[in-house]
Amino acid sequence: MNGVAKARLIIASSEQCADMLYATGFRAPDPFVFLECRGRRAILLSDLELDRGYREARVDDVVSASELERKIILKTGAKPSPAEVIASFLKAHGATRPVVPADFPLGLSRELEGQGIQVKPVLGMFLPERQIKTAEEIILVTKAIRTTEIGMERAFEILRASTIGLRNVLKWGGRVLTSERLRTEIETAILHAGGIPAANSIVACGEQACDPHGRGHGALKANKMIIIDLFPRSATSGYYGDLTRTVVRGKATEEQARLWEICLLGQKLALASLRPGIDGGAIHGEVQGFFTDNGYPTERLGGGKGRWSGFFHGTGHGLGLDLHEPPRFGASRLKAGQVFTIEPGLYIPGIGGVRHEDVVLITPEGHRLLSRISKPFEL
Amino acid sequence: MNGVAKARLIIASSEQCADMLYATGFRAPDPFVFLECRGRRAILLSDLELDRGYREARVDDVVSASELERKIILKTGAKPSPAEVIASFLKAHGATRPVVPADFPLGLSRELEGQGIQVKPVLGMFLPERQIKTAEEIILVTKAIRTTEIGMERAFEILRASTIGLRNVLKWGGRVLTSERLRTEIETAILHAGGIPAANSIVACGEQACDPHGRGHGALKANKMIIIDLFPRSATSGYYGDLTRTVVRGKATEEQARLWEICLLGQKLALASLRPGIDGGAIHGEVQGFFTDNGYPTERLGGGKGRWSGFFHGTGHGLGLDLHEPPRFGASRLKAGQVFTIEPGLYIPGIGGVRHEDVVLITPEGHRLLSRISKPFEL
Repeated sequence: MNGVAKARLIIASSEQCADMLYATGFRAPDPFVFLECRGRRAILLSDLELDRGYREARVDDVVSASELERKIILKTGAKPSPAEVIASFLKAHGATRPVVPADFPLGLSRELEGQGIQVKPVLGMFLPERQIKTAEEIILVTKAIRTTEIGMERAFEILRASTIGLRNVLKWGGRVLTSERLRTEIETAILHAGGIPAANSIVACGEQACDPHGRGHGALKANKMIIIDLFPRSATSGYYGDLTRTVVRGKATEEQARLWEICLLGQKLALASLRPGIDGGAIHGEVQGFFTDNGYPTERLGGGKGRWSGFFHGTGHGLGLDLHEPPRFGASRLKAGQVFTIEPGLYIPGIGGVRHEDVVLITPEGHRLLSRISKPFEL
Repeated sequence: MNGVAKARLIIASSEQCADMLYATGFRAPDPFVFLECRGRRAILLSDLELDRGYREARVDDVVSASELERKIILKTGAKPSPAEVIASFLKAHGATRPVVPADFPLGLSRELEGQGIQVKPVLGMFLPERQIKTAEEIILVTKAIRTTEIGMERAFEILRASTIGLRNVLKWGGRVLTSERLRTEIETAILHAGGIPAANSIVACGEQACDPHGRGHGALKANKMIIIDLFPRSATSGYYGDLTRTVVRGKATEEQARLWEICLLGQKLALASLRPGIDGGAIHGEVQGFFTDNGYPTERLGGGKGRWSGFFHGTGHGLGLDLHEPPRFGASRLKAGQVFTIEPGLYIPGIGGVRHEDVVLITPEGHRLLSRISKPFEL
């Protein structure tokens, strides 16, 4: 490989694109250009971001797009398109055939093609170094998890303080406690702890919790299982936390308690298997098999036409500057330094939903739990 | 044009992609597939989203990706890749050459190519109907602006209640009032009003405010201009609000007051020019010229090598399901039904930064202000 072939190009907003944030350490809401070429890293910025870029970006060169534009106008007499400016930046670095992330915008790739730039998408991880967390990153992820735990503690506190009204409706502060109200209180606690609350955090009660992505709405009820899944981002570092707990305000039934317990044993099974070299897909299969053996198969009800029942999502996902980031837990051999959520769930219409989610670091010896908040059941 | 040529394809998460949310009305954190073909609209969903999709998506057909996968396995005996499943879905609809948004992922376009699907990126607006807001959308944007105004009122309230301590440092609740603390209080108010606070809302004081995208940090000070720029999203509708006010806690200097006033006159100039058919770029030029005539030219200091000074960002941007959405204010003739921010700013190192931002609807007669919160200066 020569230097030209190895040029890496990203064009994205670092608020949206974790690769960009990882590569530059520079947080900007609008798309900008990053190029790594012959061991040097450069960014091309609009005037709006230029001063901040000089101060904050962890790169070798910060180039002004408007200055480059003026140079092109001096040479050609015509105002160049944004793609022409980017192409000129790339050519000046000898990077006419850079590799780009798989999610590089197709339209822009065509425009650059018209300017003599051939970009080549990388189908797997674009910055594979991201999957092995550094010591500094582990500290930052752990801090984001602590923020998440503060939100979870607030949820427990409010549920404990709630009273049980007519038809088992929970009340708090003199009013009905809804999913929406509890979510707002949790998110307020997360904000005050330095987190950016997720747009779609989950507080789902009873049958609503059988839908793993349903956010939950309306009155929370006593004696029903409530899934609380929080995944805020650190406002300072950009790293994510991700945690799920399942609780009952009041008294659980025996079948709720059994579902909760089997799900927990499934999580323990997964945790006990974690170590470098092991196949995440095999662990997922083991957990699913364990649930089936205990009476909770993964299946569609109603002769295969109705709702899903059982454990019908992945056992976990990579966590870092993206909430869901590579590698896929179920499709990779684990490596020391990777950070994953481990989150088996059981969703049985008629009983309710349970999910237990923690975050682990894969270590040479096995794993280390990064989350530490307990798992209360009845509150 | 025949039906096949007109097929429109989007593959994206509707939390990230406003076109997808507009097309389906279905909020999902993970990417899914939308196809509009021969007047019918269909989505392809994973098991995780299927039940919710049946209930919530505003489309004609909801198709299960895993069922399609099983059909392919029955036929071929092999597990298909995600791209094969998508290609099979497209072929079943006769949509082998669909158009896609310009930001369609390049990697996926190559994978689909390998399955006989040629996607064609649309370089302008993919759903041009989005730029003309319906009556329902105007109500939703206006609601999002009201939520933003609640956050702004909270900022004013806290600044008014703050006391001025040693070295002009503001104090509130017995502690130093920092950008971070004020932001947290604003965002708490926005959360409680049903908004999702922005990850990077701005509370920037003094020289910090000279950088239009700097979020601001550290102690807020009396007698300095503070730019507060809030752009939360409605948690229910997904529409954005966007507002900026510039205030001084305490007493402004004459040159601060003049900068604030000239910026306001610039905004009034822009507002007075708004009507269908007018060129947004011409309005921008007029405002910039007005600022230059009043002693605030747009220029780089230090012989063209230093910081920017003057008015060096756009006059406004489209607002809706995206915070910054087409059309570009500075590059289009306005049309009735479009919603824009109008936000001239003046940033003069040594004096400070001012920005006045409101939201307007372009009407057949001119414009209607959708934001209504006042513009206090000294608090």
